[in-house]
Amino acid sequence: MKKVTATGSSDFVPPEQRIAVFDNDGTLWAEQPIYFQFFFVIDQLQAQSPQHPEWKTTEPFKSALAGDLKGVAASGENGIVQLVAATHAGMTTEQFARNVNEWMSTARHPKTRRVFTEMVYQPMLELVHYLRDNGFKTYIVSGGGQDFMRAWATAAYGIPPEQIIGSQGELKFELRDGKPVLMKEAKVALVDDGPGKPVGIERFIGRKPIFAFGNSDGDQQMLEWTASGDGARFAGLVHHTDASREWAYDRQSPVGKLDKALDEATAKGWTVVDMRKDWNAVFPAEKK
Amino acid sequence: MKKVTATGSSDFVPPEQRIAVFDNDGTLWAEQPIYFQFFFVIDQLQAQSPQHPEWKTTEPFKSALAGDLKGVAASGENGIVQLVAATHAGMTTEQFARNVNEWMSTARHPKTRRVFTEMVYQPMLELVHYLRDNGFKTYIVSGGGQDFMRAWATAAYGIPPEQIIGSQGELKFELRDGKPVLMKEAKVALVDDGPGKPVGIERFIGRKPIFAFGNSDGDQQMLEWTASGDGARFAGLVHHTDASREWAYDRQSPVGKLDKALDEATAKGWTVVDMRKDWNAVFPAEKK
Repeated sequence: MKKVTATGSSDFVPPEQRIAVFDNDGTLWAEQPIYFQFFFVIDQLQAQSPQHPEWKTTEPFKSALAGDLKGVAASGENGIVQLVAATHAGMTTEQFARNVNEWMSTARHPKTRRVFTEMVYQPMLELVHYLRDNGFKTYIVSGGGQDFMRAWATAAYGIPPEQIIGSQGELKFELRDGKPVLMKEAKVALVDDGPGKPVGIERFIGRKPIFAFGNSDGDQQMLEWTASGDGARFAGLVHHTDASREWAYDRQSPVGKLDKALDEATAKGWTVVDMRKDWNAVFPAEKK
Repeated sequence: MKKVTATGSSDFVPPEQRIAVFDNDGTLWAEQPIYFQFFFVIDQLQAQSPQHPEWKTTEPFKSALAGDLKGVAASGENGIVQLVAATHAGMTTEQFARNVNEWMSTARHPKTRRVFTEMVYQPMLELVHYLRDNGFKTYIVSGGGQDFMRAWATAAYGIPPEQIIGSQGELKFELRDGKPVLMKEAKVALVDDGPGKPVGIERFIGRKPIFAFGNSDGDQQMLEWTASGDGARFAGLVHHTDASREWAYDRQSPVGKLDKALDEATAKGWTVVDMRKDWNAVFPAEKK
Protein backbone atom coordinates (compact mmCIF):
# COMPACT_ATOMS: atom_id res chain seq x y z
CA MET A 1 0.00 0.00 0.00
CA LYS A 2 1.34 3.37 -1.03
CA LYS A 3 0.57 6.07 1.49
CA VAL A 4 -1.07 9.40 0.74
CA THR A 5 1.38 12.24 1.16
CA ALA A 6 0.78 15.96 0.91
CA THR A 7 3.48 16.57 -1.67
CA GLY A 8 5.06 14.80 -4.61
CA SER A 9 3.66 14.78 -8.12
CA SER A 10 3.64 10.99 -8.32
CA ASP A 11 1.05 10.94 -5.55
CA PHE A 12 -1.30 13.43 -7.20
CA VAL A 13 -4.86 12.31 -6.65
CA PRO A 14 -7.62 13.52 -9.00
CA PRO A 15 -10.17 15.63 -7.08
CA GLU A 16 -13.05 13.15 -7.55
CA GLN A 17 -11.03 10.43 -5.82
CA ARG A 18 -10.36 12.54 -2.72
CA ILE A 19 -12.80 10.71 -0.47
CA ALA A 20 -11.95 10.43 3.23
CA VAL A 21 -14.04 8.41 5.69
CA PHE A 22 -13.97 8.66 9.47
CA ASP A 23 -15.52 6.51 12.12
CA ASN A 24 -17.16 8.70 14.77
CA ASP A 25 -17.26 7.04 18.24
CA GLY A 26 -13.70 6.80 19.54
CA THR A 27 -12.27 8.34 16.37
CA LEU A 28 -13.77 11.84 16.15
CA TRP A 29 -15.16 12.04 19.69
CA ALA A 30 -14.88 10.01 22.88
CA GLU A 31 -16.90 6.85 23.58
CA GLN A 32 -16.33 5.99 27.24
CA PRO A 33 -17.69 4.75 29.57
CA ILE A 34 -20.40 3.97 26.97
CA TYR A 35 -21.17 5.28 23.50
CA PHE A 36 -22.59 8.77 24.05
CA GLN A 37 -25.71 7.90 22.12
CA PHE A 38 -26.41 5.51 25.04
CA PHE A 39 -26.69 8.40 27.43
CA PHE A 40 -29.31 9.84 25.14
CA VAL A 41 -31.05 6.46 25.00
CA ILE A 42 -31.05 6.13 28.80
CA ASP A 43 -32.49 9.62 29.27
CA GLN A 44 -35.18 8.93 26.66
CA LEU A 45 -36.01 5.56 28.26
CA GLN A 46 -36.36 7.12 31.68
CA ALA A 47 -38.76 9.71 30.32
CA GLN A 48 -40.89 6.99 28.69
CA SER A 49 -40.60 4.30 31.36
CA PRO A 50 -43.96 4.99 33.06
CA GLN A 51 -45.65 3.80 29.83
CA HIS A 52 -43.47 0.65 29.66
CA PRO A 53 -43.63 -1.29 32.94
CA GLU A 54 -42.21 -4.38 31.20
CA TRP A 55 -38.86 -2.64 30.82
CA LYS A 56 -38.23 -3.11 34.56
CA THR A 57 -37.77 -6.85 34.06
CA THR A 58 -36.47 -7.11 30.49
CA GLU A 59 -32.86 -6.70 29.34
CA PRO A 60 -31.33 -4.54 28.05
CA PHE A 61 -33.99 -2.08 29.28
CA LYS A 62 -33.63 -3.09 32.93
CA SER A 63 -29.90 -2.33 33.04
CA ALA A 64 -30.28 0.84 31.02
CA LEU A 65 -32.95 2.25 33.33
CA ALA A 66 -30.87 1.40 36.40
CA GLY A 67 -27.89 3.23 34.93
CA ASP A 68 -25.99 -0.08 35.02
CA LEU A 69 -23.50 0.61 32.30
CA LYS A 70 -21.84 -2.82 32.49
CA GLY A 71 -25.19 -4.54 32.13
CA VAL A 72 -25.95 -2.47 29.06
CA ALA A 73 -22.55 -3.14 27.54
CA ALA A 74 -23.00 -6.86 28.24
CA SER A 75 -26.08 -6.93 26.03
CA GLY A 76 -23.79 -6.36 23.06
CA GLU A 77 -24.54 -4.95 19.63
CA ASN A 78 -27.94 -6.62 19.53
CA GLY A 79 -28.98 -5.03 22.80
CA ILE A 80 -27.82 -1.69 21.48
CA VAL A 81 -29.97 -2.11 18.41
CA GLN A 82 -33.01 -2.96 20.58
CA LEU A 83 -32.56 0.11 22.73
CA VAL A 84 -32.05 2.36 19.76
CA ALA A 85 -35.18 0.98 18.09
CA ALA A 86 -37.26 1.54 21.24
CA THR A 87 -36.18 5.17 21.65
CA HIS A 88 -35.65 6.25 18.04
CA ALA A 89 -38.92 5.11 16.45
CA GLY A 90 -42.61 6.02 16.41
CA MET A 91 -42.03 9.68 15.69
CA THR A 92 -41.28 11.89 12.71
CA THR A 93 -37.70 12.58 11.63
CA GLU A 94 -38.26 16.22 12.59
CA GLN A 95 -39.44 15.37 16.10
CA PHE A 96 -36.47 13.06 16.62
CA ALA A 97 -34.00 15.75 15.53
CA ARG A 98 -35.64 18.16 18.00
CA ASN A 99 -35.29 15.57 20.79
CA VAL A 100 -31.60 15.07 20.04
CA ASN A 101 -30.86 18.78 19.84
CA GLU A 102 -32.70 19.51 23.07
CA TRP A 103 -30.81 16.75 24.86
CA MET A 104 -27.46 17.68 23.33
CA SER A 105 -27.73 21.28 24.52
CA THR A 106 -28.23 20.28 28.18
CA ALA A 107 -26.84 16.79 28.90
CA ARG A 108 -23.32 16.53 30.30
CA HIS A 109 -20.74 13.77 30.42
CA PRO A 110 -20.56 12.17 33.91
CA LYS A 111 -16.77 12.40 34.13
CA THR A 112 -15.79 15.64 32.37
CA ARG A 113 -19.07 17.49 33.05
CA ARG A 114 -18.76 18.95 29.55
CA VAL A 115 -21.52 18.89 26.96
CA PHE A 116 -20.87 15.97 24.65
CA THR A 117 -20.14 18.07 21.57
CA GLU A 118 -17.13 19.47 23.45
CA MET A 119 -15.69 15.97 23.70
CA VAL A 120 -14.61 15.86 20.08
CA TYR A 121 -10.90 15.35 19.47
CA GLN A 122 -9.02 18.53 18.64
CA PRO A 123 -6.32 16.81 16.50
CA MET A 124 -8.98 15.00 14.46
CA LEU A 125 -10.89 18.25 13.90
CA GLU A 126 -7.67 19.72 12.53
CA LEU A 127 -7.16 16.68 10.28
CA VAL A 128 -10.72 16.86 8.92
CA HIS A 129 -10.24 20.54 8.11
CA TYR A 130 -6.80 19.90 6.60
CA LEU A 131 -8.22 17.28 4.26
CA ARG A 132 -11.10 19.53 3.24
CA ASP A 133 -8.70 22.40 2.60
CA ASN A 134 -6.91 20.03 0.21
CA GLY A 135 -10.01 19.16 -1.77
CA PHE A 136 -11.13 16.06 0.09
CA LYS A 137 -14.77 15.27 0.62
CA THR A 138 -14.94 14.16 4.27
CA TYR A 139 -17.49 11.56 5.39
CA ILE A 140 -18.50 10.04 8.68
CA VAL A 141 -19.08 6.28 8.44
CA SER A 142 -20.18 5.21 11.90
CA GLY A 143 -21.96 2.43 13.72
CA GLY A 144 -23.81 5.20 15.56
CA GLY A 145 -27.26 6.31 14.49
CA GLN A 146 -27.35 8.29 11.28
CA ASP A 147 -30.24 10.51 12.34
CA PHE A 148 -28.70 10.99 15.79
CA MET A 149 -25.41 12.18 14.30
CA ARG A 150 -26.95 14.37 11.65
CA ALA A 151 -28.69 16.42 14.36
CA TRP A 152 -25.39 17.81 15.70
CA ALA A 153 -22.38 16.60 13.69
CA THR A 154 -22.69 19.20 10.93
CA ALA A 155 -22.10 21.98 13.46
CA ALA A 156 -19.40 19.99 15.29
CA TYR A 157 -17.28 18.89 12.32
CA GLY A 158 -18.46 20.97 9.37
CA ILE A 159 -19.64 17.79 7.63
CA PRO A 160 -23.01 18.16 5.86
CA PRO A 161 -25.82 15.64 6.53
CA GLU A 162 -25.46 13.92 3.15
CA GLN A 163 -21.89 12.99 4.15
CA ILE A 164 -22.93 11.48 7.48
CA ILE A 165 -23.55 7.74 7.11
CA GLY A 166 -24.58 5.63 10.08
CA SER A 167 -26.77 2.81 11.29
CA GLN A 168 -30.32 3.53 10.31
CA GLY A 169 -33.90 2.39 10.64
CA GLU A 170 -36.63 2.17 8.06
CA LEU A 171 -38.65 5.31 7.32
CA LYS A 172 -42.26 5.55 6.19
CA PHE A 173 -43.80 8.37 4.18
CA GLU A 174 -47.21 9.49 5.46
CA LEU A 175 -49.60 12.35 4.93
CA ARG A 176 -50.82 13.82 8.22
CA ASP A 177 -53.57 16.39 7.82
CA GLY A 178 -52.35 16.76 4.25
CA LYS A 179 -48.79 17.48 5.37
CA PRO A 180 -46.12 14.91 4.38
CA VAL A 181 -43.97 13.47 7.16
CA LEU A 182 -41.43 10.68 7.47
CA MET A 183 -42.06 8.33 10.38
CA LYS A 184 -39.14 6.54 12.00
CA GLU A 185 -39.90 2.82 12.25
CA ALA A 186 -38.53 0.27 14.71
CA LYS A 187 -36.92 -1.79 11.98
CA VAL A 188 -33.21 -1.74 11.20
CA ALA A 189 -32.29 -0.88 7.60
CA LEU A 190 -28.51 -0.92 7.97
CA VAL A 191 -26.10 -1.74 10.78
CA ASP A 192 -23.22 0.41 9.63
CA ASP A 193 -20.55 -1.41 11.60
CA GLY A 194 -17.90 -4.00 10.79
CA PRO A 195 -18.67 -5.54 7.37
CA GLY A 196 -21.63 -3.11 7.17
CA LYS A 197 -19.23 -0.17 6.75
CA PRO A 198 -18.00 -1.03 3.24
CA VAL A 199 -21.67 -1.68 2.40
CA GLY A 200 -22.65 1.78 3.67
CA ILE A 201 -19.73 3.33 1.79
CA GLU A 202 -20.68 1.68 -1.50
CA ARG A 203 -24.37 2.44 -1.08
CA PHE A 204 -23.92 6.10 -0.16
CA ILE A 205 -20.70 7.12 -1.88
CA GLY A 206 -20.35 4.60 -4.71
CA ARG A 207 -16.58 5.05 -4.75
CA LYS A 208 -13.81 3.48 -2.76
CA PRO A 209 -12.29 6.01 -0.34
CA ILE A 210 -8.54 6.55 -0.40
CA PHE A 211 -8.33 7.64 3.24
CA ALA A 212 -9.95 5.98 6.26
CA PHE A 213 -9.56 6.51 10.01
CA GLY A 214 -11.04 4.36 12.73
CA ASN A 215 -10.26 3.12 16.22
CA SER A 216 -11.80 -0.30 16.76
CA ASP A 217 -12.47 -3.73 15.30
CA GLY A 218 -15.73 -2.29 13.96
CA ASP A 219 -13.58 -0.32 11.53
CA GLN A 220 -11.49 -3.24 10.33
CA GLN A 221 -13.43 -3.94 7.12
CA MET A 222 -13.68 -0.23 6.30
CA LEU A 223 -9.88 0.01 6.52
CA GLU A 224 -9.42 -3.18 4.49
CA TRP A 225 -11.80 -1.87 1.83
CA THR A 226 -10.07 1.51 1.68
CA ALA A 227 -6.57 0.03 1.60
CA SER A 228 -7.42 -2.43 -1.18
CA GLY A 229 -7.45 0.00 -4.10
CA ASP A 230 -4.67 1.07 -6.41
CA GLY A 231 -2.56 4.19 -5.90
CA ALA A 232 -1.95 6.20 -2.74
CA ARG A 233 -3.92 5.00 0.31
CA PHE A 234 -4.14 5.87 4.00
CA ALA A 235 -5.52 3.59 6.71
CA GLY A 236 -5.27 4.80 10.31
CA LEU A 237 -6.33 3.87 13.82
CA VAL A 238 -6.61 5.99 16.96
CA HIS A 239 -5.15 3.94 19.84
CA HIS A 240 -6.63 5.01 23.18
CA THR A 241 -3.55 5.01 25.42
CA ASP A 242 -4.17 8.05 27.59
CA ALA A 243 -5.75 7.16 30.93
CA SER A 244 -5.18 10.62 32.40
CA ARG A 245 -6.43 12.94 29.65
CA GLU A 246 -8.93 10.48 28.14
CA TRP A 247 -9.18 6.69 28.58
CA ALA A 248 -6.82 3.77 28.00
CA TYR A 249 -8.40 0.67 26.46
CA ASP A 250 -8.04 -1.72 23.57
CA ARG A 251 -8.20 -5.53 23.37
CA GLN A 252 -10.47 -6.16 26.38
CA SER A 253 -12.82 -3.19 26.21
CA PRO A 254 -16.56 -3.88 25.87
CA VAL A 255 -16.85 -0.51 24.11
CA GLY A 256 -14.53 0.28 21.22
CA LYS A 257 -12.66 -3.04 21.35
CA LEU A 258 -9.43 -2.84 19.35
CA ASP A 259 -7.88 -6.27 18.89
CA LYS A 260 -7.95 -7.84 15.43
CA ALA A 261 -7.68 -4.49 13.70
CA LEU A 262 -4.60 -3.64 15.79
CA ASP A 263 -2.92 -6.85 14.70
CA GLU A 264 -3.83 -6.18 11.09
CA ALA A 265 -2.52 -2.61 11.35
CA THR A 266 0.82 -3.93 12.57
CA ALA A 267 0.95 -6.58 9.86
CA LYS A 268 -0.01 -4.23 7.05
CA GLY A 269 1.75 -1.06 8.14
CA TRP A 270 -1.37 1.00 8.77
CA THR A 271 -0.82 4.17 10.81
CA VAL A 272 -1.55 3.77 14.53
CA VAL A 273 -1.86 7.00 16.51
CA ASP A 274 -0.75 6.71 20.13
CA MET A 275 -3.03 9.24 21.80
CA ARG A 276 -0.80 9.76 24.84
CA LYS A 277 2.40 10.29 22.88
CA ASP A 278 1.16 11.81 19.63
CA TRP A 279 -1.53 14.31 20.67
CA ASN A 280 -0.62 17.66 22.26
CA ALA A 281 -4.27 18.24 23.10
CA VAL A 282 -7.14 15.77 23.27
CA PHE A 283 -10.25 17.96 23.55
CA PRO A 284 -10.74 21.57 22.47
CA ALA A 285 -9.80 24.15 25.11
CA GLU A 286 -12.64 24.87 27.53
CA LYS A 287 -14.53 28.02 26.72
CA LYS A 288 -13.87 30.73 29.31
CA MET B 1 -45.97 27.49 -2.60
CA LYS B 2 -43.56 30.23 -3.57
CA LYS B 3 -41.60 29.42 -6.70
CA VAL B 4 -37.85 29.54 -7.05
CA THR B 5 -36.80 32.38 -9.32
CA ALA B 6 -33.36 33.29 -10.58
CA THR B 7 -33.49 36.85 -9.35
CA GLY B 8 -34.94 38.83 -6.48
CA SER B 9 -33.31 39.20 -3.10
CA SER B 10 -36.37 37.97 -1.22
CA ASP B 11 -35.90 34.60 -2.91
CA PHE B 12 -32.24 34.23 -1.99
CA VAL B 13 -31.57 30.64 -0.99
CA PRO B 14 -28.56 29.83 1.23
CA PRO B 15 -26.09 27.60 -0.64
CA GLU B 16 -26.59 24.58 1.64
CA GLN B 17 -30.32 24.53 0.81
CA ARG B 18 -29.75 24.43 -2.95
CA ILE B 19 -30.69 20.79 -3.38
CA ALA B 20 -32.35 19.74 -6.66
CA VAL B 21 -33.67 16.22 -7.27
CA PHE B 22 -34.53 14.69 -10.63
CA ASP B 23 -36.27 11.49 -11.50
CA ASN B 24 -34.39 9.69 -14.28
CA ASP B 25 -36.66 7.51 -16.47
CA GLY B 26 -38.96 9.79 -18.46
CA THR B 27 -37.51 12.90 -16.83
CA LEU B 28 -33.82 12.95 -17.79
CA TRP B 29 -33.95 10.31 -20.52
CA ALA B 30 -36.66 8.42 -22.41
CA GLU B 31 -38.46 5.37 -21.04
CA GLN B 32 -40.47 3.90 -23.95
CA PRO B 33 -41.46 1.32 -24.99
CA ILE B 34 -40.07 -0.01 -21.68
CA TYR B 35 -37.65 1.33 -19.09
CA PHE B 36 -34.22 1.11 -20.71
CA GLN B 37 -32.88 -0.91 -17.83
CA PHE B 38 -35.31 -3.60 -19.07
CA PHE B 39 -33.47 -3.91 -22.32
CA PHE B 40 -30.34 -4.57 -20.28
CA VAL B 41 -32.25 -7.12 -18.20
CA ILE B 42 -33.59 -8.92 -21.28
CA ASP B 43 -30.13 -9.13 -22.84
CA GLN B 44 -28.66 -10.44 -19.57
CA LEU B 45 -31.49 -12.98 -19.21
CA GLN B 46 -30.98 -14.26 -22.71
CA ALA B 47 -27.28 -14.78 -22.06
CA GLN B 48 -28.07 -16.74 -18.86
CA SER B 49 -31.17 -18.59 -20.02
CA PRO B 50 -29.41 -21.90 -20.85
CA GLN B 51 -28.69 -22.27 -17.11
CA HIS B 52 -32.30 -21.47 -16.15
CA PRO B 53 -34.74 -23.71 -18.05
CA GLU B 54 -37.51 -22.82 -15.55
CA TRP B 55 -37.61 -19.28 -16.93
CA LYS B 56 -39.34 -20.57 -20.08
CA THR B 57 -42.53 -21.26 -18.13
CA THR B 58 -42.37 -18.68 -15.31
CA GLU B 59 -43.47 -15.04 -15.50
CA PRO B 60 -42.06 -12.46 -15.77
CA PHE B 61 -39.09 -14.36 -17.19
CA LYS B 62 -41.11 -16.03 -19.93
CA SER B 63 -42.34 -12.73 -21.39
CA ALA B 64 -38.95 -11.07 -21.01
CA LEU B 65 -37.13 -13.83 -22.87
CA ALA B 66 -39.70 -13.77 -25.66
CA GLY B 67 -39.25 -10.03 -26.04
CA ASP B 68 -42.94 -9.62 -25.15
CA LEU B 69 -42.83 -6.09 -23.82
CA LYS B 70 -46.51 -5.97 -22.90
CA GLY B 71 -46.23 -9.19 -20.91
CA VAL B 72 -43.29 -7.76 -19.01
CA ALA B 73 -45.07 -4.48 -18.35
CA ALA B 74 -48.14 -6.42 -17.15
CA SER B 75 -46.09 -8.03 -14.40
CA GLY B 76 -45.88 -4.60 -12.76
CA GLU B 77 -43.37 -3.25 -10.28
CA ASN B 78 -43.07 -6.59 -8.53
CA GLY B 79 -42.18 -8.34 -11.74
CA ILE B 80 -39.62 -5.67 -12.44
CA VAL B 81 -38.03 -6.22 -9.06
CA GLN B 82 -37.85 -9.99 -9.69
CA LEU B 83 -36.13 -9.52 -13.02
CA VAL B 84 -33.69 -7.02 -11.60
CA ALA B 85 -32.86 -9.36 -8.73
CA ALA B 86 -32.25 -12.27 -11.11
CA THR B 87 -29.89 -10.31 -13.35
CA HIS B 88 -28.26 -7.90 -10.91
CA ALA B 89 -27.18 -10.29 -8.12
CA GLY B 90 -24.60 -13.00 -7.48
CA MET B 91 -21.66 -10.97 -8.67
CA THR B 92 -19.38 -8.25 -7.32
CA THR B 93 -20.27 -4.58 -7.70
CA GLU B 94 -17.25 -4.22 -9.98
CA GLN B 95 -18.33 -7.06 -12.27
CA PHE B 96 -21.84 -5.63 -12.49
CA ALA B 97 -20.53 -2.18 -13.45
CA ARG B 98 -18.42 -3.80 -16.18
CA ASN B 99 -21.49 -5.65 -17.49
CA VAL B 100 -23.50 -2.43 -17.65
CA ASN B 101 -20.74 -0.46 -19.33
CA GLU B 102 -20.14 -3.18 -21.90
CA TRP B 103 -23.84 -3.34 -22.72
CA MET B 104 -24.28 0.43 -22.75
CA SER B 105 -21.49 0.91 -25.29
CA THR B 106 -23.07 -1.47 -27.81
CA ALA B 107 -26.84 -1.84 -27.26
CA ARG B 108 -29.16 0.37 -29.30
CA HIS B 109 -32.73 1.51 -28.90
CA PRO B 110 -35.10 -0.44 -31.20
CA LYS B 111 -36.82 2.68 -32.55
CA THR B 112 -34.14 5.38 -32.76
CA ARG B 113 -31.18 3.00 -33.25
CA ARG B 114 -29.17 5.31 -31.02
CA VAL B 115 -27.16 4.15 -28.01
CA PHE B 116 -29.26 4.72 -24.91
CA THR B 117 -27.05 7.42 -23.43
CA GLU B 118 -27.86 9.54 -26.49
CA MET B 119 -31.53 9.43 -25.54
CA VAL B 120 -31.16 11.89 -22.70
CA TYR B 121 -33.24 15.06 -22.97
CA GLN B 122 -31.30 18.07 -24.21
CA PRO B 123 -33.44 20.68 -22.34
CA MET B 124 -33.08 18.77 -19.08
CA LEU B 125 -29.30 18.54 -19.52
CA GLU B 126 -29.30 22.32 -19.89
CA LEU B 127 -31.44 22.69 -16.76
CA VAL B 128 -29.18 20.42 -14.70
CA HIS B 129 -26.15 22.44 -15.78
CA TYR B 130 -27.96 25.74 -15.15
CA LEU B 131 -28.79 24.71 -11.60
CA ARG B 132 -25.22 23.55 -10.93
CA ASP B 133 -23.86 26.81 -12.33
CA ASN B 134 -26.05 28.52 -9.72
CA GLY B 135 -24.69 26.56 -6.79
CA PHE B 136 -27.22 23.73 -6.71
CA LYS B 137 -26.24 20.21 -5.80
CA THR B 138 -28.08 18.09 -8.37
CA TYR B 139 -29.29 14.58 -7.47
CA ILE B 140 -30.95 11.76 -9.33
CA VAL B 141 -33.71 10.10 -7.29
CA SER B 142 -35.02 7.28 -9.45
CA GLY B 143 -36.95 4.04 -9.26
CA GLY B 144 -34.26 2.65 -11.56
CA GLY B 145 -31.35 0.65 -10.20
CA GLN B 146 -28.78 2.68 -8.32
CA ASP B 147 -25.82 0.56 -9.43
CA PHE B 148 -27.13 0.47 -12.99
CA MET B 149 -27.34 4.26 -13.17
CA ARG B 150 -24.04 4.92 -11.45
CA ALA B 151 -22.24 2.97 -14.19
CA TRP B 152 -23.08 5.56 -16.86
CA ALA B 153 -24.99 8.55 -15.43
CA THR B 154 -21.93 10.40 -14.16
CA ALA B 155 -20.61 10.71 -17.71
CA ALA B 156 -24.07 11.46 -19.14
CA TYR B 157 -25.21 14.17 -16.69
CA GLY B 158 -22.09 15.21 -14.78
CA ILE B 159 -23.68 13.94 -11.56
CA PRO B 160 -21.24 12.05 -9.28
CA PRO B 161 -22.14 8.57 -7.95
CA GLU B 162 -22.83 9.79 -4.41
CA GLN B 163 -25.62 11.98 -5.85
CA ILE B 164 -27.27 9.12 -7.73
CA ILE B 165 -29.96 7.49 -5.58
CA GLY B 166 -32.02 4.60 -6.89
CA SER B 167 -33.61 1.29 -6.06
CA GLN B 168 -31.01 -0.98 -4.58
CA GLY B 169 -30.29 -4.47 -3.36
CA GLU B 170 -28.43 -5.67 -0.31
CA LEU B 171 -24.64 -5.94 -0.51
CA LYS B 172 -22.36 -8.34 1.33
CA PHE B 173 -18.74 -7.77 2.20
CA GLU B 174 -16.49 -10.76 1.55
CA LEU B 175 -12.80 -11.52 1.39
CA ARG B 176 -11.91 -13.50 -1.74
CA ASP B 177 -8.32 -14.72 -1.77
CA GLY B 178 -7.63 -11.99 0.77
CA LYS B 179 -9.09 -9.30 -1.49
CA PRO B 180 -12.24 -7.54 -0.23
CA VAL B 181 -15.24 -7.50 -2.56
CA LEU B 182 -18.89 -6.48 -2.28
CA MET B 183 -21.31 -9.08 -3.54
CA LYS B 184 -24.67 -8.00 -4.93
CA GLU B 185 -27.45 -10.01 -3.27
CA ALA B 186 -30.90 -10.85 -4.61
CA LYS B 187 -32.65 -9.00 -1.80
CA VAL B 188 -34.20 -5.58 -2.16
CA ALA B 189 -32.95 -2.91 0.25
CA LEU B 190 -34.94 0.05 -1.08
CA VAL B 191 -37.57 0.50 -3.78
CA ASP B 192 -36.88 4.14 -4.54
CA ASP B 193 -40.23 4.85 -6.15
CA GLY B 194 -43.45 6.52 -5.04
CA PRO B 195 -43.41 6.88 -1.23
CA GLY B 196 -39.91 5.36 -1.31
CA LYS B 197 -38.53 8.52 -2.94
CA PRO B 198 -38.87 10.81 0.11
CA VAL B 199 -37.38 7.92 2.12
CA GLY B 200 -34.39 7.73 -0.23
CA ILE B 201 -34.02 11.51 -0.12
CA GLU B 202 -34.01 11.62 3.68
CA ARG B 203 -31.69 8.64 3.99
CA PHE B 204 -29.14 9.85 1.46
CA ILE B 205 -29.40 13.63 1.60
CA GLY B 206 -30.87 14.33 5.02
CA ARG B 207 -32.34 17.63 3.82
CA LYS B 208 -35.55 18.49 2.05
CA PRO B 209 -34.85 19.54 -1.56
CA ILE B 210 -36.24 22.85 -2.77
CA PHE B 211 -36.42 21.76 -6.41
CA ALA B 212 -37.84 18.52 -7.81
CA PHE B 213 -38.61 17.35 -11.34
CA GLY B 214 -40.42 14.18 -12.29
CA ASN B 215 -42.77 12.85 -14.94
CA SER B 216 -45.00 10.18 -13.45
CA ASP B 217 -47.12 9.10 -10.51
CA GLY B 218 -43.98 7.49 -9.10
CA ASP B 219 -42.73 11.02 -8.50
CA GLN B 220 -45.84 12.29 -6.75
CA GLN B 221 -44.58 11.87 -3.17
CA MET B 222 -41.17 13.31 -4.05
CA LEU B 223 -42.88 16.42 -5.40
CA GLU B 224 -45.19 16.62 -2.37
CA TRP B 225 -42.22 16.29 -0.03
CA THR B 226 -40.22 18.93 -1.89
CA ALA B 227 -43.15 21.36 -2.12
CA SER B 228 -44.00 21.06 1.57
CA GLY B 229 -41.18 23.16 3.00
CA ASP B 230 -41.03 26.86 3.73
CA GLY B 231 -39.62 29.43 1.33
CA ALA B 232 -39.11 29.23 -2.41
CA ARG B 233 -39.95 25.82 -3.95
CA PHE B 234 -40.15 24.30 -7.42
CA ALA B 235 -42.10 21.16 -8.35
CA GLY B 236 -42.22 20.19 -12.02
CA LEU B 237 -43.43 17.44 -14.32
CA VAL B 238 -42.40 16.53 -17.85
CA HIS B 239 -45.59 15.76 -19.79
CA HIS B 240 -44.91 13.42 -22.71
CA THR B 241 -47.02 14.95 -25.48
CA ASP B 242 -44.80 14.53 -28.51
CA ALA B 243 -45.68 11.42 -30.52
CA SER B 244 -43.51 12.43 -33.46
CA ARG B 245 -40.22 13.41 -31.81
CA GLU B 246 -40.61 11.16 -28.74
CA TRP B 247 -43.76 9.47 -27.38
CA ALA B 248 -47.16 10.69 -26.21
CA TYR B 249 -48.53 9.00 -23.10
CA ASP B 250 -49.89 9.78 -19.68
CA ARG B 251 -52.91 8.43 -17.77
CA GLN B 252 -53.15 4.99 -19.42
CA SER B 253 -49.49 4.14 -19.95
CA PRO B 254 -48.13 0.97 -18.32
CA VAL B 255 -44.73 2.66 -18.23
CA GLY B 256 -44.42 6.15 -16.75
CA LYS B 257 -48.12 6.50 -15.93
CA LEU B 258 -48.99 10.13 -15.20
CA ASP B 259 -52.46 10.43 -13.70
CA LYS B 260 -52.77 11.38 -10.03
CA ALA B 261 -49.66 13.52 -10.13
CA LEU B 262 -51.02 15.43 -13.14
CA ASP B 263 -54.21 16.20 -11.24
CA GLU B 264 -52.23 17.30 -8.21
CA ALA B 265 -49.98 19.47 -10.37
CA THR B 266 -53.04 21.24 -11.75
CA ALA B 267 -54.56 21.66 -8.29
CA LYS B 268 -51.37 22.92 -6.68
CA GLY B 269 -49.91 24.97 -9.51
CA TRP B 270 -46.86 22.81 -10.11
CA THR B 271 -45.05 23.43 -13.39
CA VAL B 272 -46.04 21.04 -16.19
CA VAL B 273 -43.76 21.00 -19.23
CA ASP B 274 -45.54 20.21 -22.50
CA MET B 275 -42.80 18.43 -24.41
CA ARG B 276 -44.28 19.09 -27.84
CA LYS B 277 -44.86 22.81 -27.30
CA ASP B 278 -42.10 23.75 -24.87
CA TRP B 279 -39.02 21.91 -26.12
CA ASN B 280 -37.12 23.10 -29.20
CA ALA B 281 -35.08 19.92 -29.17
CA VAL B 282 -35.77 16.63 -27.43
CA PHE B 283 -32.52 14.66 -27.79
CA PRO B 284 -28.97 15.96 -28.34
CA ALA B 285 -28.03 16.45 -31.99
CA GLU B 286 -26.72 13.28 -33.62
CA LYS B 287 -22.95 13.16 -33.81
CA LYS B 288 -21.76 13.49 -37.42
